[in-house]
Amino acid sequence: MEDLAVPAPLSGGFTYLVAASQTLGLAVILVLGAWMGVYRGGIAWESSELQFNVHPLCMVVGMVFLQGDALLVYRVFRNESKRSTKILHGLLHALALVIALVGLIAVFEYHKKKSFPNMYSLHSWCGIAAFSFYVLQWLLGLVFFLCPGVSFSVRSRYKPHHMFFGVFLFILSLATALLGILELLLFKIRDSYSAFVPEGVLANILGLLLVAFGAVLAYILTRDEWQRPPLAEELALSMDFKTLTEGDSPAASH
Amino acid sequence: MEDLAVPAPLSGGFTYLVAASQTLGLAVILVLGAWMGVYRGGIAWESSELQFNVHPLCMVVGMVFLQGDALLVYRVFRNESKRSTKILHGLLHALALVIALVGLIAVFEYHKKKSFPNMYSLHSWCGIAAFSFYVLQWLLGLVFFLCPGVSFSVRSRYKPHHMFFGVFLFILSLATALLGILELLLFKIRDSYSAFVPEGVLANILGLLLVAFGAVLAYILTRDEWQRPPLAEELALSMDFKTLTEGDSPAASH
Repeated sequence: MEDLAVPAPLSGGFTYLVAASQTLGLAVILVLGAWMGVYRGGIAWESSELQFNVHPLCMVVGMVFLQGDALLVYRVFRNESKRSTKILHGLLHALALVIALVGLIAVFEYHKKKSFPNMYSLHSWCGIAAFSFYVLQWLLGLVFFLCPGVSFSVRSRYKPHHMFFGVFLFILSLATALLGILELLLFKIRDSYSAFVPEGVLANILGLLLVAFGAVLAYILTRDEWQRPPLAEELALSMDFKTLTEGDSPAASH
Repeated sequence: MEDLAVPAPLSGGFTYLVAASQTLGLAVILVLGAWMGVYRGGIAWESSELQFNVHPLCMVVGMVFLQGDALLVYRVFRNESKRSTKILHGLLHALALVIALVGLIAVFEYHKKKSFPNMYSLHSWCGIAAFSFYVLQWLLGLVFFLCPGVSFSVRSRYKPHHMFFGVFLFILSLATALLGILELLLFKIRDSYSAFVPEGVLANILGLLLVAFGAVLAYILTRDEWQRPPLAEELALSMDFKTLTEGDSPAASH
């Protein structure tokens, strides 16, 4: 049993891909910041024009960068205790939710000041769906995985669905970000966009960086060989559980 | 060994989800057809206006519906021979590529007739990336999995990457379709879109149907318990191979 509990060595690709994902994530935030700063006048909460620019920044930092990194923690912190990793996962998602909420308030307040209608575009429909389900997923995760009363068997059955919907919501958030980029460009530089002006090219590059960030993250998350190995105490616990119930394999523990 | 070759029974959810995916896929095509027919004047190749409408129809039928269904065949036709399933998979992707090519020609010809510039928007950047990598992925698949000279070991090592990039390209195609919907709406009904006119609401619903089609398909494709079981001859073959090389597990055969 002790042999099983020794963490399997990771192939070299893992470290490079995690580094690539973080580089891409930071590049996304920098390019978005440059777009808002250089071409859209910067950000300011107490402004009828610049309050809008808080929206893309907060949504991308929360719903893309932090949400994405929260999905990575089980694979990156593979040798830390499961409980600490779980709390870090929950806290990163909580931080993402709070930052995204600020981004949502910014755009609704901006629309109110300008008397613009809300919630009519495909970007807003996808965005509100992603945010609502993200709140729901966070609450379900809290109940199933952090409440002490929930049995190992219930957790094991919910876990694959939690993981699938986590990746689904991350991809939906990315798609919503792409829609947001295109919507902003067609509202602000519709006539010059087709002349390949620098703002349009920069925003398109931002879109491709977002796709690349999502692709590298999804690749890291879906490699079977990079799954977090079960720790000694989890193996012991799940072996006991298995003896008692003849339930699932130890690898299904959460 | 014969016991292992008996197909495992599928849980009831599989059939319902496959039915749901096909219903959603057909709903996508019908709603898109209704949008083009009722609000955009129908389709016609020999027309300076209506040739554009060939583009969304062909791209969605090819790059979304047929590409998606091609990914499903290994799980749906689990009891057919691997070779027939492989050929069906390749043919569906080939059909998808030809239909998508017609859709691409339509939009480039339309732009030429109207003297509109090409390839400046985020939709076009994502779309051309998805189409180019899709052609490349198809060619690599043909060489690796249908050329008789390629060894079992090389196929086994390429297979997980082929599967990952297949799902990635499907999702990128879906995101490109969402961008296309928003771009068309902001070009055609920018001023009335915010008044929730029927065309805008219909096109937004089309976007949500595309997301739902992608979600159901991705769910079916990522459930471990619905993986295609290896057939008797594949098991025999891979057992022989394993004895010879101490290579991968039989489940990794393609």
